[in-house]
Amino acid sequence: MKQKRFILPESEIPTQWYNVVADMTNKPMPMINPATKEPITAEDLYPLFAEECSRQEVNRTDAWIDIPEEVREKYAYYRCTPLVRAYSLEEALGTPAHIYFKNESVNPLGSHKLNSAIPQAYYCKQQGVTNVTTETGAGQWGAALAYSAKLFGLDCAIYQVKISYEQKPYRRIIMQVFDAQVTPSPSMSTRAGKDLLTADPNHQGSLGTAISEAVELAMMTPNCKYLLGSVLNHVCLHQTVIGLEAEKQMAMAGEYPDIVIGCFGGGSNFSGISMPFMRHNLKDGKHTRFIAAEPASCPKLTKGEFRYDFGDETGYTPLIPMFTLGHEFRPANIHAGGLRYHGAGAIVSQLVKDGLVEAVDIRQLDSFAAGQLFAKAEGIIPAPESCHAIAAAINEANKCKETGEEKVILFNLSGHGLVDMTAYDQYISGTLANTGD
Amino acid sequence: MKQKRFILPESEIPTQWYNVVADMTNKPMPMINPATKEPITAEDLYPLFAEECSRQEVNRTDAWIDIPEEVREKYAYYRCTPLVRAYSLEEALGTPAHIYFKNESVNPLGSHKLNSAIPQAYYCKQQGVTNVTTETGAGQWGAALAYSAKLFGLDCAIYQVKISYEQKPYRRIIMQVFDAQVTPSPSMSTRAGKDLLTADPNHQGSLGTAISEAVELAMMTPNCKYLLGSVLNHVCLHQTVIGLEAEKQMAMAGEYPDIVIGCFGGGSNFSGISMPFMRHNLKDGKHTRFIAAEPASCPKLTKGEFRYDFGDETGYTPLIPMFTLGHEFRPANIHAGGLRYHGAGAIVSQLVKDGLVEAVDIRQLDSFAAGQLFAKAEGIIPAPESCHAIAAAINEANKCKETGEEKVILFNLSGHGLVDMTAYDQYISGTLANTGD
Repeated sequence: MKQKRFILPESEIPTQWYNVVADMTNKPMPMINPATKEPITAEDLYPLFAEECSRQEVNRTDAWIDIPEEVREKYAYYRCTPLVRAYSLEEALGTPAHIYFKNESVNPLGSHKLNSAIPQAYYCKQQGVTNVTTETGAGQWGAALAYSAKLFGLDCAIYQVKISYEQKPYRRIIMQVFDAQVTPSPSMSTRAGKDLLTADPNHQGSLGTAISEAVELAMMTPNCKYLLGSVLNHVCLHQTVIGLEAEKQMAMAGEYPDIVIGCFGGGSNFSGISMPFMRHNLKDGKHTRFIAAEPASCPKLTKGEFRYDFGDETGYTPLIPMFTLGHEFRPANIHAGGLRYHGAGAIVSQLVKDGLVEAVDIRQLDSFAAGQLFAKAEGIIPAPESCHAIAAAINEANKCKETGEEKVILFNLSGHGLVDMTAYDQYISGTLANTGD
Repeated sequence: MKQKRFILPESEIPTQWYNVVADMTNKPMPMINPATKEPITAEDLYPLFAEECSRQEVNRTDAWIDIPEEVREKYAYYRCTPLVRAYSLEEALGTPAHIYFKNESVNPLGSHKLNSAIPQAYYCKQQGVTNVTTETGAGQWGAALAYSAKLFGLDCAIYQVKISYEQKPYRRIIMQVFDAQVTPSPSMSTRAGKDLLTADPNHQGSLGTAISEAVELAMMTPNCKYLLGSVLNHVCLHQTVIGLEAEKQMAMAGEYPDIVIGCFGGGSNFSGISMPFMRHNLKDGKHTRFIAAEPASCPKLTKGEFRYDFGDETGYTPLIPMFTLGHEFRPANIHAGGLRYHGAGAIVSQLVKDGLVEAVDIRQLDSFAAGQLFAKAEGIIPAPESCHAIAAAINEANKCKETGEEKVILFNLSGHGLVDMTAYDQYISGTLANTGD
């Protein structure tokens, strides 16, 4: 029997995260304080984020950061996640490529987001914080944080992008099962939300608007921190457990990836799967290609501009050096809610600028076609976000079919789509469109 | 770090299923042909079931049945499933008991049902069958079969209990993603369905009515077999992969269960976790207790009668020796759709009759309270069916708290509840009732 799944023992859950910034020749430009125009320091971030997260955010020198033992214990609830050889998908495509995926969908909350929610909640608890708040799109991050907050006894308030709140009621309920307070954004509960709703009562929300509301709530609430699920360096750092495990698992399979692929919203799952392999490009002469798969309707990497921009719609955040569509960009209502973000994190933006990461854009219907093909072959219904990575992987596998090359393709299955079934319903009934592409 | 999850390597996926009937002193009485009053033979079942399944159904002598290599290959898509020590739940309860659960929710379709859907579809394919049909309640079995049929290139038609079809649209969509044809039952597409709807146009359906429709379709369609997801001996046989793995995993943890618990609809997941341990009671002098947890609104084991009864509402099936509420029993519309069945399979019925298996009934609100407590502790939102097993496990753990005993409790987490979130929505908003209890 050919081995299909590769799993590490609990003892091999990584003990350190990998900070690629330390190994980058051209380091990302620093975040800028919009008032002073000075680079942001860790101390500048303390009012908003946990102190340890703030220090990780600006750490440009340490390639390895210890994972606290308490975090590893919680990681053990679902890690190591399986690396899977997609034999059935290869067969369905008739490709000579070897396709692997890292299955981050098998954790309790159904996506990779837990990898950062747990340490962020832990660091808050450790410094005596009692309340946390965040934004969420499709709800993967919100669900992960709601559970992580519960694990560490923190009260949790979540602003969910209104269109997703309505499209994906199951994720709202999941957050509520863990006692989180969930508010559709924009809402009347913050000044930012009020302003947006006054200007446009039908505002459907975006990650940018929900971030504004959550940041405002954190600033107004005693002993409350704001936690972000993507974009920032420390979030991408936590996600490197994905790639660090995958590296060992690929070795178990006796292979090394020629191509690494992740879907791309703000950069967390893409960075998680990519950066541990990127270090061998940077340091050991490897030539792996890295492909970020973004939606055609929100194409910051393929059609955006590289410049300083705000992380949120209102302009509460520091200025971030990023590929951006502009912080007031209103993405179309595609089902991949987690990819509806105007900008790319600083690390990936720099790597794209330097030609070390490629980007492709995927249309909504193509993403679901890829997702359904994958489901029929591998039995896992992927999240609409993950469908973008699958589509990009299939494109590369089809190129191998033409050239006859046995390339090794690794993609990150960032989450399952079991609470996104209305999207599949529209797709298979033919009522889904290439919205905004 | 205390080890939380125990996982076997792919090479240790069982090579044989365990047939407890061979080791039972009082064997279950045979199924009876209602026309001739004669015991059913394998050949009698060939028109309806795959031939190998028919032979397995009446096998009373072989304790071990080989798992085909092609089935093991598909099992490897998700097996071995984790055995988990529920440290957080123990802590939340303050119990000295050691609680373990076998996590069957981590497979692609979210429940244990795949363990039998794969071999049943395989055996059909092997003998040249082209079409399969079945019934489903909550949709766990239907989803598993839709995927398994796709794996082996079979056309698949599914009758879903109408109340579940309406309550749980996501599972209907999952089946459709795999190209299955899904019809709410009772329907006008069969004589059985027409008769039921004529008598009661508002008939909400039950597993019994949906079985009648599927059996009728199988009998009327060329080269079509009927596949059942529970109750029958061969289904319980296939599910023993759960307990066989769990036995090895408990040994990894250095423990052996004092109590084994499963929720109970027709008996498939309960038998799967229990029978491999039962063999040590039957043969090796062990004294493990086995507890079947059924809904208070459908209490065949605790309040039913032991007698011959039909497996379906219309009376198409052979007569089965079972604890039954009567084949015309109409269960209340509880959310645990998989437990809404009037009878218990022959093996478990005999074991209950002989005092080798205990049964408890759980009220709907108590099941969801247990489910939410478990979710907050372990991060996994359990299926409404599995909540019954959790409630029974918590009851036993609380008894240990009173007595101070460090009992080892093992329960089967048969599935996750991510597509049952409307039920949780009602529970946490206080609008759920103890329907029919």
